[in-house]
Amino acid sequence: MTYRRFLLASALIAAPTLAQRAAPPVPAPVDPKVAALRDAALKDDVAYDIVEGLTTEVGQRLAATEAEARARSWGVAKLKALGFKNVHVETYQMPVWLRGTETAEVVAPFPQQLKLVALGNSGATPDAGLTAPVAVFRTYGELANALPEAVRGKIVYIGNAMKPTQDGSSYGAYGPARFVGPALAARLGAAAVVIKSVGTDHHRNPHTGGTNWPAGVTPIPAAALSVPDGELIERMAERGKPITLKLVLTPRFAGTGTSGNVIAEVPGSDPKAGIVLIGGHLDSWDLGTGAIDDASGIAITTAAAKRLLDGPRPRRTIRVVWFGAEEPGGYGGKEYARVHGGERHATAGESDFGADRVWRFEVNLPDGAKPVADRLQSALAPLGISRGSGIGGDGTDVGPTMALGVAAIDLNQDGTRYFDTHHTPDDTLDRIDPEQLRQNVAAWTTMLAVVANAPEDIGPVSPRR
Amino acid sequence: MTYRRFLLASALIAAPTLAQRAAPPVPAPVDPKVAALRDAALKDDVAYDIVEGLTTEVGQRLAATEAEARARSWGVAKLKALGFKNVHVETYQMPVWLRGTETAEVVAPFPQQLKLVALGNSGATPDAGLTAPVAVFRTYGELANALPEAVRGKIVYIGNAMKPTQDGSSYGAYGPARFVGPALAARLGAAAVVIKSVGTDHHRNPHTGGTNWPAGVTPIPAAALSVPDGELIERMAERGKPITLKLVLTPRFAGTGTSGNVIAEVPGSDPKAGIVLIGGHLDSWDLGTGAIDDASGIAITTAAAKRLLDGPRPRRTIRVVWFGAEEPGGYGGKEYARVHGGERHATAGESDFGADRVWRFEVNLPDGAKPVADRLQSALAPLGISRGSGIGGDGTDVGPTMALGVAAIDLNQDGTRYFDTHHTPDDTLDRIDPEQLRQNVAAWTTMLAVVANAPEDIGPVSPRR
Repeated sequence: MTYRRFLLASALIAAPTLAQRAAPPVPAPVDPKVAALRDAALKDDVAYDIVEGLTTEVGQRLAATEAEARARSWGVAKLKALGFKNVHVETYQMPVWLRGTETAEVVAPFPQQLKLVALGNSGATPDAGLTAPVAVFRTYGELANALPEAVRGKIVYIGNAMKPTQDGSSYGAYGPARFVGPALAARLGAAAVVIKSVGTDHHRNPHTGGTNWPAGVTPIPAAALSVPDGELIERMAERGKPITLKLVLTPRFAGTGTSGNVIAEVPGSDPKAGIVLIGGHLDSWDLGTGAIDDASGIAITTAAAKRLLDGPRPRRTIRVVWFGAEEPGGYGGKEYARVHGGERHATAGESDFGADRVWRFEVNLPDGAKPVADRLQSALAPLGISRGSGIGGDGTDVGPTMALGVAAIDLNQDGTRYFDTHHTPDDTLDRIDPEQLRQNVAAWTTMLAVVANAPEDIGPVSPRR
Repeated sequence: MTYRRFLLASALIAAPTLAQRAAPPVPAPVDPKVAALRDAALKDDVAYDIVEGLTTEVGQRLAATEAEARARSWGVAKLKALGFKNVHVETYQMPVWLRGTETAEVVAPFPQQLKLVALGNSGATPDAGLTAPVAVFRTYGELANALPEAVRGKIVYIGNAMKPTQDGSSYGAYGPARFVGPALAARLGAAAVVIKSVGTDHHRNPHTGGTNWPAGVTPIPAAALSVPDGELIERMAERGKPITLKLVLTPRFAGTGTSGNVIAEVPGSDPKAGIVLIGGHLDSWDLGTGAIDDASGIAITTAAAKRLLDGPRPRRTIRVVWFGAEEPGGYGGKEYARVHGGERHATAGESDFGADRVWRFEVNLPDGAKPVADRLQSALAPLGISRGSGIGGDGTDVGPTMALGVAAIDLNQDGTRYFDTHHTPDDTLDRIDPEQLRQNVAAWTTMLAVVANAPEDIGPVSPRR
């Protein structure tokens, strides 16, 4: 809020007489047991222990590889050691994509080596590489307006101007360069695509991430340059001289492999009240060690559930899922909905936006359960968490389950720093701020204490979209 | 200064009577022409243009390679275009070291890929790699106290706890792990050495840099892990399980090559008054594009000299040198002193500590030239630059010349951020803050305006060390 707007707002508050003002709403009271659980969670060490352990003892966990299998074994042992019930793995089959060699160089006008990484699902160049002229598009929108003759046979460069946003909305605005830019370039006849990383940092660590090839589009080589390398290409383009790149990208699809979801429970006393589903994803991209994406999410939700596990049995069963294979296409979440969609779920929510503080919550609850949100509002306020005006229901992993009509509670994390590190080699333990991680655990503990014990019936809702 | 100390200092100032106080020193007056040059330089664009051009049109400039030769050609063209006189290259021969393949993995207890880069002058592993147990030393001091049987046949890990310091002093404190740690390990019978990068960041971009092999010590493979990878090794070590690493490092010495110094002048009116020698180094390590190390140094000093070039002829000749091959061992600086040491130099100074603001200056001037420092103090103060209490005379490139008895003027840059980026792939244009770069140009312009026109004789001095 600007200073001028602040003055105006003050004037508006001061102007009405007492009689004209609506009475402020009376906050819902906070159950002292909920407050006690919340405040104790601010001293949590379980979540950090999980992130530290997973990043140190397993490391990267690319979907459907032996590393992800080792991570599942690690998870089963950890969840059993913590005392969770019904700890087990549910496996499924999926296509395996593996990174190969990846190098790039400017051949002309100014020879330089570049830093880039293949995007998930990228096609491959010949082993000896691909050399071609570059067509520079500063944005996805410029490419969308391009004629095929400007693209055919070329290496397409797609830039972006992404800036950090607290709610992550700039990922939605600039992400299409990665999500669908390569497929569009392929349709227009491009030989390959390099994008400027969809990221908000300035380091030579490119941001990978999946790209999508609709049916009928043959994958072409598709890779992300680091942000500084993207800016370098744009500076060369400003000089008006033709640019030639040589790319060597040899990723491959390696048939079908096994992935799986790791599941654990805090049993409830009332099986008919429905399950409270929470979790994050166990797999990661292969460049870092998946600390903020998403060891932190499984750690936060597991640590919160552990606090309920160690107290009186809650009314509802809390089910914690460490979803597999989120990154390459949400396989674990879809599989969970396929297997468990028929069971009654009260609510669903996932933690998959880093490890920084929760600043807002949003819900999608049936009318009969509205008081649950009011109690959440009161109980979360001391953590600095406000109630958003939107409708909740976010997440790749719980999305397929929520699409079946399950109520949603989203705890939104501050994403200002998230896209500095997202999908890069820098996603390592040092990115975790232990204090902010604890605030997350306190927020999720509070949510579980309120929702798992809510006396209201929490029935089906219309999904957000 | 803490608040308590501030109170104390105020009390001390307030306490003496007027009669008791020593009169404050009267600042030397500032020549209006000097002030005008200084203030105009705060709008400089020449320095940024040089850094932008060199990083975009040449990129990395490893010593004695064709890239460094291209950079010399670029420099000659730029210096001639700027109007400098006597622009030429002075070449010399030197050993060439080239980076090869570099990969590392933890084989046991927790398989993970690591990020590392070979140190300059590193030996090589067999092409198929070297697998050996690891001996972990948290500091160089721990290694210095180790018995040979704790090291023999092992891969030695050397950690450090470097933190940022404004004056760069922590590089002196923790740098020995890189400068001499590998040689010490080799003497003790180590198979290879990996150090935690001597850096203050947390990114997966390791810091390279030269390591030294005294006569009689056979080089062994020596590399730097990124800081997060070093921390990972230390966390594994804390678990008390033996660690095995596999390293593939194939750098090589490639015979003798050509390097060179690029020299340009602003001719002075009084050849007997001595040369004012300034500059930075043109070569860079091969990982980034050498923006802060040291395109910025040559850019700052060249832009400042250009401001004198465009005005009335100064009394003293200003000689700008873009030194070659600083990184692998200061070859350009030694060659300059060998060729030009017999010429009369009034002062020498170099810019080689990034692109952040100058905060202090220190001099080593003969007694007869002390007023020059007083005038510098007055003229630099408006730029936020204070006079240090130490003796100036710093720099790898001008060091050999100063060792011959040439007076020194050091303009010290703020090094707080410098070791986040130093010798990493992240040393790219985006690291340059244009406003701080301009402040540097203003500082050097001021120094040149004062020193090149000083009426005093500036004769020889005893070198600092």
